[in-house]
Amino acid sequence: MKEADVSHRVAGPNAKLIGKPGGLRELTTPALVLDLEAFEQNIGAYQHQINLHGLRARPHAKSHKCAEIARRQIAAGAVGVCTASLHEAEAMVGQGISNILITSPVIGSGKLDRLMQLLEWGAVVAVVVDDQEHAASLATAAHQSGHVLDVLIDVDLGMGRTGVSNIESALRLVNLVSDAEGIAYRGLQAYSGRVQHIEGFAERDRIYTEQLSFLSTLIAALDKRGLKPATVTGGGTGTLALDCREGILTEHQAGSYIFMDVEYGAVTLRANDAGAAFATSLFLHSTVISKNVPGRVTIDAGLKSFATDGPLPRVSAGAPVGTIYSFFGDEHGCLTFPTPADCLPLGGIVAFITPHCDPTINLHDYLHVVRHDTIVDIWQIVGRGVL
Amino acid sequence: MKEADVSHRVAGPNAKLIGKPGGLRELTTPALVLDLEAFEQNIGAYQHQINLHGLRARPHAKSHKCAEIARRQIAAGAVGVCTASLHEAEAMVGQGISNILITSPVIGSGKLDRLMQLLEWGAVVAVVVDDQEHAASLATAAHQSGHVLDVLIDVDLGMGRTGVSNIESALRLVNLVSDAEGIAYRGLQAYSGRVQHIEGFAERDRIYTEQLSFLSTLIAALDKRGLKPATVTGGGTGTLALDCREGILTEHQAGSYIFMDVEYGAVTLRANDAGAAFATSLFLHSTVISKNVPGRVTIDAGLKSFATDGPLPRVSAGAPVGTIYSFFGDEHGCLTFPTPADCLPLGGIVAFITPHCDPTINLHDYLHVVRHDTIVDIWQIVGRGVL
Repeated sequence: MKEADVSHRVAGPNAKLIGKPGGLRELTTPALVLDLEAFEQNIGAYQHQINLHGLRARPHAKSHKCAEIARRQIAAGAVGVCTASLHEAEAMVGQGISNILITSPVIGSGKLDRLMQLLEWGAVVAVVVDDQEHAASLATAAHQSGHVLDVLIDVDLGMGRTGVSNIESALRLVNLVSDAEGIAYRGLQAYSGRVQHIEGFAERDRIYTEQLSFLSTLIAALDKRGLKPATVTGGGTGTLALDCREGILTEHQAGSYIFMDVEYGAVTLRANDAGAAFATSLFLHSTVISKNVPGRVTIDAGLKSFATDGPLPRVSAGAPVGTIYSFFGDEHGCLTFPTPADCLPLGGIVAFITPHCDPTINLHDYLHVVRHDTIVDIWQIVGRGVL
Repeated sequence: MKEADVSHRVAGPNAKLIGKPGGLRELTTPALVLDLEAFEQNIGAYQHQINLHGLRARPHAKSHKCAEIARRQIAAGAVGVCTASLHEAEAMVGQGISNILITSPVIGSGKLDRLMQLLEWGAVVAVVVDDQEHAASLATAAHQSGHVLDVLIDVDLGMGRTGVSNIESALRLVNLVSDAEGIAYRGLQAYSGRVQHIEGFAERDRIYTEQLSFLSTLIAALDKRGLKPATVTGGGTGTLALDCREGILTEHQAGSYIFMDVEYGAVTLRANDAGAAFATSLFLHSTVISKNVPGRVTIDAGLKSFATDGPLPRVSAGAPVGTIYSFFGDEHGCLTFPTPADCLPLGGIVAFITPHCDPTINLHDYLHVVRHDTIVDIWQIVGRGVL
C-alpha cells in the first residue's frame, strides 16, 4: 500500500471548496456551517450592549473552542476570553490568545505544572479557587516557579457545583489569597449555570435576582474590610439583560450568543425588546444516505454530530416544513416527514439548528464559514477534546 | 508572548508518564484508561469463538477508532476491520490498516472522490449499497478511475435504517451490481443494531432468529440464481453466540466486546455460560475538583467525557460503594455519596465504567494503556470526529 496523504486534514476535506462560488452546496457532511453575517452581527450586538452598560466583555470560549473566534471577540473589544478547562486554555495560548480566565478549579500536580508553563510562555492566565488548601497549593506552585498567578474567588450562586456558598468561607479565602506569596487576589467569579436556560424572562429575573443578593452582600462585606473585588466576573447569554440592569458584575462571560442554538432559541432573552438581540449563526449540514422506507429518510448525522443532552436538532432548511429529526445511532439520524408521500433524494442536503451548541461544537474539528453560499474560510476547533 | 510548545499533544499531556512505575496515579484527567490484560483477553476470546465456528472476524472499528487496536485485532486473526464512515476508513488507511469494509452507504461526489483515493493508495476497501442509482454512480466513479470496487448489498433486518427490506429489490440490486463495470458483487451485509442491546438472551434470540429468516430466504433465492453471496457479513457483540449457532453469517463485525461498557454489562451474552466471555477493559479516570457541599463532590468529567445517549457511567473504583454519578454540565460531573458523611479529597481520582463506549471514545483523543498501574503506552484515537 502507498503512503496515504492526509494533509488535507488541516482544514478538513472541504478545504478545496474555500472561495468557490456556491461551494456550500458541494460540502462534504456532516459539517458545521457558520453564517458569517449572523455571527458578526452577534459579536457586534453583544459588545455594544456591554459597552453601553460600562462592563467589560470576556466571552466564554467553551462555546466555540476556536481561536479565530476568540481573536474576533477580542478585536471587537473583549479584554480576553474565558475557558472552562486548562486544556482549552492551552489550545488558545497555542494560537496566540494571551489573556485567559480558566473558570473551573485547576486541580492536580500535573495540571499545576502545565498552568505554570502557560505563565512561562508569557500568557496572562487567571484561575478560580473555592478551597483553602487548593489556594495554598497554587501559591506554592506559582511562588516556586517565580510567577504571580491571578486568582479569583469562585462564589456559588446556588448551583452547588463549584464555589463558596457562605460569607465566612469567602472572607477566609479572600484573606488567604490576599496574603499568600505567588498568587494575587483579583476579585470574584459568580456564575449561575442553570438559570441561563429558564425560558421565561420574569421567572429567570426572579430567581437570578435572589441569587445575586448573596453576591451583593459578599461584596459589601469585602468592601467594609478593604478587600473590594476589582473584578466581579460571571453571567451568560441568558442573564445578559439582567447583568446589565443590575450592575453588580464588572466583567461578562456570555458564550452561546455568537451561535444561538435550539436551547437558547426557546429563551426570552430581553424584557420589552430592550437590549441585544442575537440570530442563529451555527448550523449543521447533513446528507440523505438511505431512502427505502416510505415517509422517512436516513441522514449521516447522529450521536457523533449532535449533542444529546438537550433538545433535539431542528430542521432549518432542505426538508418539508414539519419534518422531525430523531437519533438513529452514532452515524445516523432519521428524518420523519409530515406525510408518507414526502421524500428527499439520496445526496440531498438538510440544514439543522444545533441542539446544545457547546457539546455539539466539541464533536467537530472544523467550522465552515459561509457568506452567501460561498465558503470563505474554514476555522479549526482547536480546543475540542478534554485533555 | 513566547511561542507555545504544544508538541506533547501527539500522545497528550500524560506522555511523560509512559513506563513510570505506578504512573497511573499521576494521570491528568479526564482520561480514558485501557486495562491491557482484560483487553487482550477479550481479543483472544472473540477470535477463539470465531475460529471455533468457522467464521471470519472483521471487528468493527467504530467502537475504538484506533489503528493500534485494529492492528492487534488483525494480528489475532481478523481479516480486516469495518468502519462506520469514510472518515474512519481514511484514518485507518492513513495508519496502514489496508483491508476495510465501510458499513454505511458512502454518498455524494466529494466522498466518492475520497473513496477512489483510498483505492489509489492501494487499500482494499469494500462498501455497501441499498439503492440502484447509488450503485450505478459507484460503478461509474470506479470505472472512470480505473479501479474495481468491492460492493456488498446492505440488507435491512427490520431496523429500517439502511438496507433493502424485500427479496425483489435485493435481487434487482444484486443483478445490477453483478453486471456493472467498475464494481464487483462480493456478498451481503445484514446488521441488526437494536437487537444487540436486548438484555435477556431468550428475547434477543427470539427476535433475531425471526429477523435472520428473511436473510436465509434471500440467500436461498440468490443461490437458486447462481448468485450465492461469497460473504455474508454482520453481527455484533450482543448476537455473537447466536451468529455462531445459526451459521448464516460468514464474517462477524462485533465491536464493543473489546471494551464492555455499562450497556453491554447489562446484556446476557451467552446461554448456559457457553461461548466467549468478555471483561470490562475501558475506564474513565476523573478528578475531584470541588467539595463544598456535604454528601457530594464535583469531578472533572461531564458531557464532554461521557456519551449521554445511554445509561449513566458507573463508579468502578475510588469512591464509596453506592456512589451515584450525575451529569453537571460540559466539564463537570456530580458524585452523590450514600451518606452525607462520606467525602473525597480534592485531587482524588475516581474510575468509571463508560456508559456507551462508541460515542464515549469519540469524545477523546487518547487511550492510556495500563498494565498493573503502569502506563505502558498511549494510543491515539485517530478516527474520532465526523469529517
